Amino acid sequence: MTSASIVGIGQTEFSTNSGRSELRLALEAILAAVADAGLSARDIDGFVRYTWDNNSEAMLTSSLGLPNVRYYGEVEHGGVNCCGAVAQAADAIVAGRASCVVVYRALNARSGTRYGRADRYFTSTGGDTVVSGREPPGDIYGAPFGLLVPTQFHAFYARRYAHEYGLSDEQLTELLGSIAVSQREYANRNPRALLHDRELTMEQYRASRMISEPLRMYDACLETDGAMAMVLVRTERGAAFAKPGVEVLAGNQHIRRHSLPMLLYNDDLHVCSPPEVAADLYGRAGVSAKDVDVAMIYDATTSLVPMGLEAFGLVEPGGSHAFFTSGQNRLDGRLPVNTHGGLLSEGYFHGLNTIAEAARQLRGDSHNQRKDARVALVTVRGASSLILGRA
Amino acid sequence: MTSASIVGIGQTEFSTNSGRSELRLALEAILAAVADAGLSARDIDGFVRYTWDNNSEAMLTSSLGLPNVRYYGEVEHGGVNCCGAVAQAADAIVAGRASCVVVYRALNARSGTRYGRADRYFTSTGGDTVVSGREPPGDIYGAPFGLLVPTQFHAFYARRYAHEYGLSDEQLTELLGSIAVSQREYANRNPRALLHDRELTMEQYRASRMISEPLRMYDACLETDGAMAMVLVRTERGAAFAKPGVEVLAGNQHIRRHSLPMLLYNDDLHVCSPPEVAADLYGRAGVSAKDVDVAMIYDATTSLVPMGLEAFGLVEPGGSHAFFTSGQNRLDGRLPVNTHGGLLSEGYFHGLNTIAEAARQLRGDSHNQRKDARVALVTVRGASSLILGRA
Repeated sequence: MTSASIVGIGQTEFSTNSGRSELRLALEAILAAVADAGLSARDIDGFVRYTWDNNSEAMLTSSLGLPNVRYYGEVEHGGVNCCGAVAQAADAIVAGRASCVVVYRALNARSGTRYGRADRYFTSTGGDTVVSGREPPGDIYGAPFGLLVPTQFHAFYARRYAHEYGLSDEQLTELLGSIAVSQREYANRNPRALLHDRELTMEQYRASRMISEPLRMYDACLETDGAMAMVLVRTERGAAFAKPGVEVLAGNQHIRRHSLPMLLYNDDLHVCSPPEVAADLYGRAGVSAKDVDVAMIYDATTSLVPMGLEAFGLVEPGGSHAFFTSGQNRLDGRLPVNTHGGLLSEGYFHGLNTIAEAARQLRGDSHNQRKDARVALVTVRGASSLILGRA
Repeated sequence: MTSASIVGIGQTEFSTNSGRSELRLALEAILAAVADAGLSARDIDGFVRYTWDNNSEAMLTSSLGLPNVRYYGEVEHGGVNCCGAVAQAADAIVAGRASCVVVYRALNARSGTRYGRADRYFTSTGGDTVVSGREPPGDIYGAPFGLLVPTQFHAFYARRYAHEYGLSDEQLTELLGSIAVSQREYANRNPRALLHDRELTMEQYRASRMISEPLRMYDACLETDGAMAMVLVRTERGAAFAKPGVEVLAGNQHIRRHSLPMLLYNDDLHVCSPPEVAADLYGRAGVSAKDVDVAMIYDATTSLVPMGLEAFGLVEPGGSHAFFTSGQNRLDGRLPVNTHGGLLSEGYFHGLNTIAEAARQLRGDSHNQRKDARVALVTVRGASSLILGRA
C-alpha cells in the first residue's frame, strides 16, 4: 500500500517578537525543513497551507524560485485542522499528484495578530455573518454572552468533564495543574521551547490568576512568533534521506452535528469525539490504542488533554486524574504526552509543532526521547487526528 | 489503479437574482447532486470547498444532518482552481480518507458580490498587503495603474497573442467574436443557460462596447446567482448509480514563477502554461491530445479559449483563428468546445459548470451532445486542469 512519510522538519526560533515578516518566517522554516530532509527547495512540487496563513502558495513559489509546483491545497481553521493539513499532503502524494509536499505555518501570533484576544473575533464576525458564513471560534451565538475566545469555551468542557466523573474542584486543579507543570518540565529540557528556561511549580500554578474558571493563566497556551514546516514524500523503505522517515499511517477529520469550532454543540460536552472516530483512525492505520508509544494532544488549554487521551482509548474514561497525578505521562511513565512541552510551554503554531514532536519521537531525536517509540498518536480533540509510525 | 468518478451533478437555476441565501443555494445544489447519483445526503462523508465560498463545511454538515463527515479540504482562488477542487476530492477518495465527496460552489455573484467590479478588489487589498498576504486578482502592483479586474489584464494576453501570431485587429475580432457567437448558439440550445433565449449575432458582437481593448462586453463572462455541486465516489466498473460515472483520469494545478492570478509574470504572455504542464497531465491520464473528444476551456473572457486549446495541443499554436472561424468548435466540427455555452453564456460558477458540462458530455446527457464522447479535457488557462473519461 502506497503511503507518505514526513522526511524533514524545519522551524525558526520561537519568540514573542520575531522582528520579521510572516513571509520570511515561512521561507526560513521551509528551507530548514528541506535541508533537514537532505533535499533542495527545487524538489518541492506541492504545498498545503492553513487557510488562515497569510502567505500564499504563489508568494512562496516566487520567493523560493520553484520551477514545478503542481499541487496546492488548503485546510480551514487554525490548529483544529493541523492533522488534516498533513493528511491532505499525504493524500496528494498517495494519489500521485505531487512527490514532495510542504506543510507549513508561519505567524507573528504575539507581536502581530493575537489569537487569544477577543477583538480578533469581533473583526471577523463584523457585517452580515450569514453571508460571510465562516464561523469564527468566538461564534456569533456565544459572542453576545461574552464567549469570545477559546479559553472561555474550553472552560465549559472542563467543568462538564469534572461533573461527569465526579471530580472535586481540588481534583480538577490537581489534574490540570499536573498537566501544566509536567509539560513545563518537558519544555525545560527542550531548547526550542519558548519557556525553556522558565520553571513552573504546582504552587505557582495554583497561585496563577483565573482566566475563565476553572482555567487559570497556566492552563492556556502561548502566543508565539515563528514558523514551522514539514516535508512529505512517498514512503520508500530504506530511502536515503538525511533523517529516518516517519510514515503517515492514517489521518482523519471529523465534523458531527455541530459547528466545528464549537464543541458546545456536541451531545456530550466532556467527550471530544465519538468512539467511531477513533475506531476509523485505528482501523485504517492498522494499529490499536495499546500500540501507541507516545501521544501528542493539542493543548490550546490543559483541559483538552484528558479528553483527547480518553477519546482515543489511551486512558480510560474519567481516568485522567489518576493518570496525570501519578506521573504516567512522564518519560518513565506508561505513555509520555506532549514531550515538547506542548502549546502551553514550547510554542503555538496551530498544532504543527505538536505533529513535529510526534515525528521527532519516531525518528529518535526528541529532546525528551521515549526509547524505541514506534507509533505516535496526534489529535486535536478528535476534530483532526493522525497516527504516525516509524517508517 | 484506484480512481474516483463523478457520479452526480446538481444545480439550482441560474439567475441574476436568486432571492435566497448562498447557504440555501448550496444545499439545494448538493441535494440535487446526490439525488442525481441515486444516493442520499447521509452518504456524504467529505467536502471540498472553494476558500472563497461563504458557506463552511460545518454549516453544510449541520444543515444536511450528516452523521459522518470525516474529510474536508479547500482550494484557494476562484475559477482558477476549479479543476484543483475536483482533483483534491479525487485524492481523498483514492487515499481512502473518504468515500463520497461533494465539491460545490454557491454564490450570489450578480445580486450580491460582483466579481467583475473593482471595488471588491479594493476591499481585499486594503490595509497592509504584505501582512494580509493573499494576492487579489487585481494585484497590488497593477492596481495603481488601473489594472483592477480580470477583463483588464486578460486584454494584455489577447493583444500579445495577436502580436505573436500576426493577427490583424480584424482577425482578432473575428477570432474572439466567433467564440462568443458560437458559444451563445450552444447556450440557445441549453435550457439551463442564463442566456438561453438571447441570440447573439456577429453584428451585435462587433457593435458591443469596448470594456478593455481589444475585449468587448460580449468577450466577458456573466455574473450569476446560483449553485452547482458534484458528487464523487470511488470508481467501480458497472456500478449501479443512476447515471453513468465519469472517471477523473488526471488532474493538476500549476504555479510557475508568477503570482498565480497574474499571468503577466509569465515568460510568454500569449502562452497559458508551458508544455510540461500538458505533458504531465496527459501522461498521468494515459491519453494524448488526439484522444480528446470535447474540450471545456475556462472562459472568463473569450481570449482565454484559444490559449487553453493551444497549450494542450488541441489546436496548433496560433491556429485558433482558422479553427474557430471555420467552425471546428461546433458540434459537427473537429472538436466541440464549451458546449454548455461557457461562462460567457451559460453562467458563472467559478468553473464548476465547465467541469459539469465535460462530465455531461461523457455520460451522454449534454443538451449539445457530441456523439460517443469518451475523453474530455478541462483547463483553466493551465492553472488547473482535468482529463475526464467515460468510466
